[in-house]
Amino acid sequence: MTTKSVTSLQATRAVVFDAYGTLFNTHSISAQCEEFFPGHGNKLALLWRRKQLEYSWLTSLMGKYRDFAVLTREALAFACEQMALPLDGGRADALMFSYEKLHLFPEVRDALAKLSHLKLAILSNGSPVMLAMLVRHSHLRFDHVLSADEVGVFKPHPRVYQLATERLGVAPEAVAFVSANGWDAAGARAFGFRVYWVNRAEQPRERLDAPPHVILKDLSELPALLGVK
Amino acid sequence: MTTKSVTSLQATRAVVFDAYGTLFNTHSISAQCEEFFPGHGNKLALLWRRKQLEYSWLTSLMGKYRDFAVLTREALAFACEQMALPLDGGRADALMFSYEKLHLFPEVRDALAKLSHLKLAILSNGSPVMLAMLVRHSHLRFDHVLSADEVGVFKPHPRVYQLATERLGVAPEAVAFVSANGWDAAGARAFGFRVYWVNRAEQPRERLDAPPHVILKDLSELPALLGVK
Repeated sequence: MTTKSVTSLQATRAVVFDAYGTLFNTHSISAQCEEFFPGHGNKLALLWRRKQLEYSWLTSLMGKYRDFAVLTREALAFACEQMALPLDGGRADALMFSYEKLHLFPEVRDALAKLSHLKLAILSNGSPVMLAMLVRHSHLRFDHVLSADEVGVFKPHPRVYQLATERLGVAPEAVAFVSANGWDAAGARAFGFRVYWVNRAEQPRERLDAPPHVILKDLSELPALLGVK
Repeated sequence: MTTKSVTSLQATRAVVFDAYGTLFNTHSISAQCEEFFPGHGNKLALLWRRKQLEYSWLTSLMGKYRDFAVLTREALAFACEQMALPLDGGRADALMFSYEKLHLFPEVRDALAKLSHLKLAILSNGSPVMLAMLVRHSHLRFDHVLSADEVGVFKPHPRVYQLATERLGVAPEAVAFVSANGWDAAGARAFGFRVYWVNRAEQPRERLDAPPHVILKDLSELPALLGVK
């Protein structure tokens, strides 16, 4: 679904992707949670993700940046305590490891192959180590794999999006930014990117006064939207 | 429960309180939600609150500050859409109005009376109008009622806590900061206040590397902790 007419496709020189939930399916994390805590997997995975996001935003606002792997582990500890689930070091290690071996969504490889004439990058809150493992495991190739860690603050702070324009050497309006996270899409739009929100889960739009330019169901629609015949 | 020995009580010159959930009980919001949407009141109130917090943090990080009343109303619209509940302007007005007439927790009036020899203030993310209505309705008197609106960013950004030290004319270490929100307590601790976390709901501690100095069950414990016989 296109919410605005796309008037400047010619200008797109780079496509920047969010990682978790956009290129990589985080479903296997729920499955691992369910294996350890039968009957609680989905609820634990949702609460863990929510606390992970909260901690990334809160530490950013407090000016107390922490490595994403560290705060992800802290978020897991909080979630398990709130749900009265017994977490030990072995289970925590295994759940953290599941972040490194996430599978691509089924349409991603084909969509990216059709965009190989453009600069392709990942821009993620994930730590450099988490992202390196993830990308290696996917066998995909990107021109840049950029972590918020380089600027010491998390998305949606504009400094993170600015990192992509600096490293890719392109103006914000020449960047197609693709994210399945509505808040990330809003941050990218506020920064000045051309924004494609992948609304896989048919979520309501976020009311953050920075709507995406285009809403897609999944990445299979992206090449045509970017002018690939 | 005291987590650290209190060594510098003499130095406390001001007590700064968070408003929502700390002095004022937000339960009546759930009740109003339940009246409009039977069977969904608690879930709606929780989701609404969560989105309200998310929007306050996200707009702060994006550098796109908005009035707290506006984003509270936007959060309500998101929550109702996600739960497929029919919200109209009249119900939205009534739910927003419920924020202005919240009741004090039962122990608050007595606790504050015992602290009247100290400077007393509210420091809240609420908009000036929301806070003015709330305080007028409570018949309490504060030396200062401070809104994050004055600095154009929300808690837990340090600039908000700094506003309190500037207006009260006291150093951070001379401020006892009291909040029932774990993330707010963490932000205040990171800023340098002496922090009292009112853990009314027996929540797990937040893993934000900035623990409160003292954890209380409710405000009835506060006067003794601040040296009132």
